[in-house]
Amino acid sequence: MALSGVSTICLSGMESFAAIPKGSRKIKAGNNMVILFQGDSITDGNRGRNADLNHIMGHGYAFSIAGRLGADFPEKKMIFYNRGISGNKVNDLAKRWQTDTLDLKPDVLSILVGINDAASVVFQREPVISVEKYEELYQSLLDQTLLKFPNVLFVLCEPFILKVGKVKDNWDSFSADIEKRQAIVRKLSLKYNAVYVGFQDVFNKACEKAPAVYWMWDGVHPTVPGHELMAREWMKQVDSRIRF
Amino acid sequence: MALSGVSTICLSGMESFAAIPKGSRKIKAGNNMVILFQGDSITDGNRGRNADLNHIMGHGYAFSIAGRLGADFPEKKMIFYNRGISGNKVNDLAKRWQTDTLDLKPDVLSILVGINDAASVVFQREPVISVEKYEELYQSLLDQTLLKFPNVLFVLCEPFILKVGKVKDNWDSFSADIEKRQAIVRKLSLKYNAVYVGFQDVFNKACEKAPAVYWMWDGVHPTVPGHELMAREWMKQVDSRIRF
Repeated sequence: MALSGVSTICLSGMESFAAIPKGSRKIKAGNNMVILFQGDSITDGNRGRNADLNHIMGHGYAFSIAGRLGADFPEKKMIFYNRGISGNKVNDLAKRWQTDTLDLKPDVLSILVGINDAASVVFQREPVISVEKYEELYQSLLDQTLLKFPNVLFVLCEPFILKVGKVKDNWDSFSADIEKRQAIVRKLSLKYNAVYVGFQDVFNKACEKAPAVYWMWDGVHPTVPGHELMAREWMKQVDSRIRF
Repeated sequence: MALSGVSTICLSGMESFAAIPKGSRKIKAGNNMVILFQGDSITDGNRGRNADLNHIMGHGYAFSIAGRLGADFPEKKMIFYNRGISGNKVNDLAKRWQTDTLDLKPDVLSILVGINDAASVVFQREPVISVEKYEELYQSLLDQTLLKFPNVLFVLCEPFILKVGKVKDNWDSFSADIEKRQAIVRKLSLKYNAVYVGFQDVFNKACEKAPAVYWMWDGVHPTVPGHELMAREWMKQVDSRIRF
C-alpha cells in the first residue's frame, strides 16, 4: 500500500469534540499497532473463539484486511483482533465494550453494526433498537473509547442491504430504516473525524455488473466476492488516513 | 488481473501423456468455470459443511482467491468449491475423489497435500504414507481426473514447512521427507503440464522480513498473512495460464 499523498482534509461543519486532536488525523503506523474489528455476523465470519491461530480472523473482510496489511508490512508487527459476534446490535456491543474493545487497547477501531438493529424494528424483535437509541448508544461507545484512547482512529462502516430474500420482502421498511442509520454513521464519522467506509454505494455499483444475490446472498450477508469488495473499500479509505 | 502476455511455454523433458492437449495450455475462462480446491487443513480453513453461503470457502488462501477472482470477474459467474479436509493425506483424498472431486466437474483443480503424509513418516502414524506411495496415489488422482476431464487445468501446490514448533523439533527428518514430496509435486507438474505453485520458496523469502512464526505459527499452518502470501502466489502462477 503506497503512501496516498492525501493531506489533511478540513471537514466543514465538523462539530467540535474536545478529545479529537485538531489538524491532521493521518496517523503513522507504529510497531505493534492494534487494529480491532467490532460488529455482528458480517464481521464475525465464524471466527474461532479460542487462541487457535488457524481461525482467529473468521472468513470475511476482516481476514482479508489483516492478511494484506500483515503481508505488506511484516516489520510493523501489527496486531489484529476480530470481536464481531453474530446477531449483535449496538446494545450488545455496549454490554461487552470493556472486555472486547477497551481492554484490547485499539489504535484503530473499525465498527460495523446496524443491520440487526434495523431488523429489530422491521420484524419488531425485542429489544427493539430504534434509530434514536442506535445513535445514542453508538455515540456512547465512541465517547467511552476516546476517553481512554484520545488518539484512536475510528473506522466507521456503513451498514448496508441489497434487495434479496427477506430484505426484498420487506424492502420499504428495511430501506427506510437502514437509510436513517447510514445517515447516523455518516454524521458520527464527521463528528469524530473518523474514516467513513460507505459500503452501500460499493454494493449498489457492483449490482450493475452482477445481480444483487451474487454479492449478498440473503440481502444482508455478503458472499465471498462481496467480502472482497468490502476489504478493498476499507483499505482504500483507511489508506488515506494511516501512513504505513 | 490483466492478461499476462505469457505465451506457451514448452517444457523440455515433459513426458508425454495421451490426454494432455499438445501446445498451449493457456485456457480461456468461460462462464460458470468451476475452480476446486482440494487438500488438508490448510485448505479446509474451518469451512462450513453445509450450504450456508457464509462460510463455504473457509478462512484461508482459497477464500482469498475466490474473493478476488469473483470480485474481478463477476460476469464470468465462476463457481468455487473448497473440499479441503483437516488431517487428510493423499490416501484420504483418494477415498473421496469421486464425490469430492470428479462429481464436481472441475475446470481448474488445485491440490495441496503432503504435510500429513510427511508427518505420518516422521511420527510413524498409521497408515504411514511413504514418499513412493505418495507419488503413486497422487498420480493416480491426476490420471482419474484427466480420464474424465481431459481439459482440466491442474494447479499443483508444493507442500511446505518452516522451522517452528514440532517441525523444528524434528527438523532433519521433516525437511528431508518434505523435500522429496516437493520434488514429486514438481515432477508431476511437468508431467501433467500443470501450474506449479512453489510455496516453500515464498515462505523462505518471507522469513527474511519476519521470523518464521510470523508466517506459519506451528511450522505447518500459515497465519493470516501467510495465507495472503499463498493467495498472491497462486494468483500469480495461475494468471499465466488462464485468460480471464
